[in-house]
Amino acid sequence: MRNFKLILEYDGSAFSGFQKQPHRPTVQEALEKALTRFFGHKLKINAASSRTDAGVHAIHQVVNFKVRTDYEPAEILKALNGILPKPVVVRKIEEVPARFHARFQAKIKTYEYLIWNSRIRTPLLAARTYQVIPELAMAPMRKAAKILTGRHDFRTFCAKADGEKDTVRTIKIFSITRKGSLIRIKIGATGFLYHMVRNIAGTLVDVGRGKLSLEALEMILKSRDRRRAGTTAPGHALTLTDVTY
Amino acid sequence: MRNFKLILEYDGSAFSGFQKQPHRPTVQEALEKALTRFFGHKLKINAASSRTDAGVHAIHQVVNFKVRTDYEPAEILKALNGILPKPVVVRKIEEVPARFHARFQAKIKTYEYLIWNSRIRTPLLAARTYQVIPELAMAPMRKAAKILTGRHDFRTFCAKADGEKDTVRTIKIFSITRKGSLIRIKIGATGFLYHMVRNIAGTLVDVGRGKLSLEALEMILKSRDRRRAGTTAPGHALTLTDVTY
Repeated sequence: MRNFKLILEYDGSAFSGFQKQPHRPTVQEALEKALTRFFGHKLKINAASSRTDAGVHAIHQVVNFKVRTDYEPAEILKALNGILPKPVVVRKIEEVPARFHARFQAKIKTYEYLIWNSRIRTPLLAARTYQVIPELAMAPMRKAAKILTGRHDFRTFCAKADGEKDTVRTIKIFSITRKGSLIRIKIGATGFLYHMVRNIAGTLVDVGRGKLSLEALEMILKSRDRRRAGTTAPGHALTLTDVTY
Repeated sequence: MRNFKLILEYDGSAFSGFQKQPHRPTVQEALEKALTRFFGHKLKINAASSRTDAGVHAIHQVVNFKVRTDYEPAEILKALNGILPKPVVVRKIEEVPARFHARFQAKIKTYEYLIWNSRIRTPLLAARTYQVIPELAMAPMRKAAKILTGRHDFRTFCAKADGEKDTVRTIKIFSITRKGSLIRIKIGATGFLYHMVRNIAGTLVDVGRGKLSLEALEMILKSRDRRRAGTTAPGHALTLTDVTY
């Protein structure tokens, strides 16, 4: 058996998330169908971040699968890209040692969240940005990012439906930059709870609007009470941008 | 009569170009409908670049119109953006002297053309880029840009259908930058002939692929023979980015 690592890019607007679910188009289903068609039988795939929601994009999702084959990586890449639907592509493929697992060995996953902070909508970026009309104050948002950076129990920031018991995660990278009306939030962590990035983005917006003080943020983080989380920001403005091993 | 100058952004994929034509959605029609609905009667509009093709985007199209009204610019902007369809927005509005004309007084119009130069397609940028598979050599493309910069008779580079008699234009800005697989061509000129930017982009691709030498480029520019123009690169990768007065 050989082990292959793939890097995928996809336009999330075409899918109901990554993970397979009945009667809905998912990235996993598209990839598994392409693999089945090429190799002639079903394969199990592991993804670095398999729980990305409906609408969430990726420029660097990592997947691995094991298969007995004589094909070279470049041949597999070419074939898969010929079969896959347009909204998803294999950017890179390489053969990796048998022990490589895309999900369990991921060290840091990085997401980018884009906010369009203007009263005027943006037709050209609308598909990738979350429009927030009131002007957001950057300084408190950056202070909020500092509060959330590091090792914390992020139970407050996960979706109610998340069955995860261990809700401690470590945010290693957290930057907020602004260029005109476009605010770019970059968050890298050892792992994320379900809806965690979107809940953090929604909370940062509350802080930037002055609806949530930094003191209150510290309190709700400590409360570990899911009911106290802020708004969940929409998925279409979120992109998985990197996974390191 | 007061004279208003608007800056428009639009997603060209929703329109069959700017200029009104029967039975097709155009930016002009959308804007005129919104103006008619707000002011209660038809208005004539002038656009800096009214001949942008189907699929071509704008982040800075300039339009002006004259009207008798007591409304303030901010009120007009808000009302128009409430009426206009999602793919088009008024970014700015200001009252200008009666003599201002968006088309006749435009000094430099700038367009950006995006090429995705990779064998691997890009789902996230596909709607805005023209994919070219063979690796393009940047040095000859930049030399070609230098040859085309300045005052020339660009007859070779206009569409056969262009009825323009005076085909002399001056290219003032011409830059080609590359970041990974993304090549960004920026062209600013005193004016453009029909299909001129797309024909120049197609010609640059021919140069970058080694299909057209710089000597041959100089010859076809001098030939002023429309039949000798290269491929017309697709419209969806072109954006009007600036107009100066």
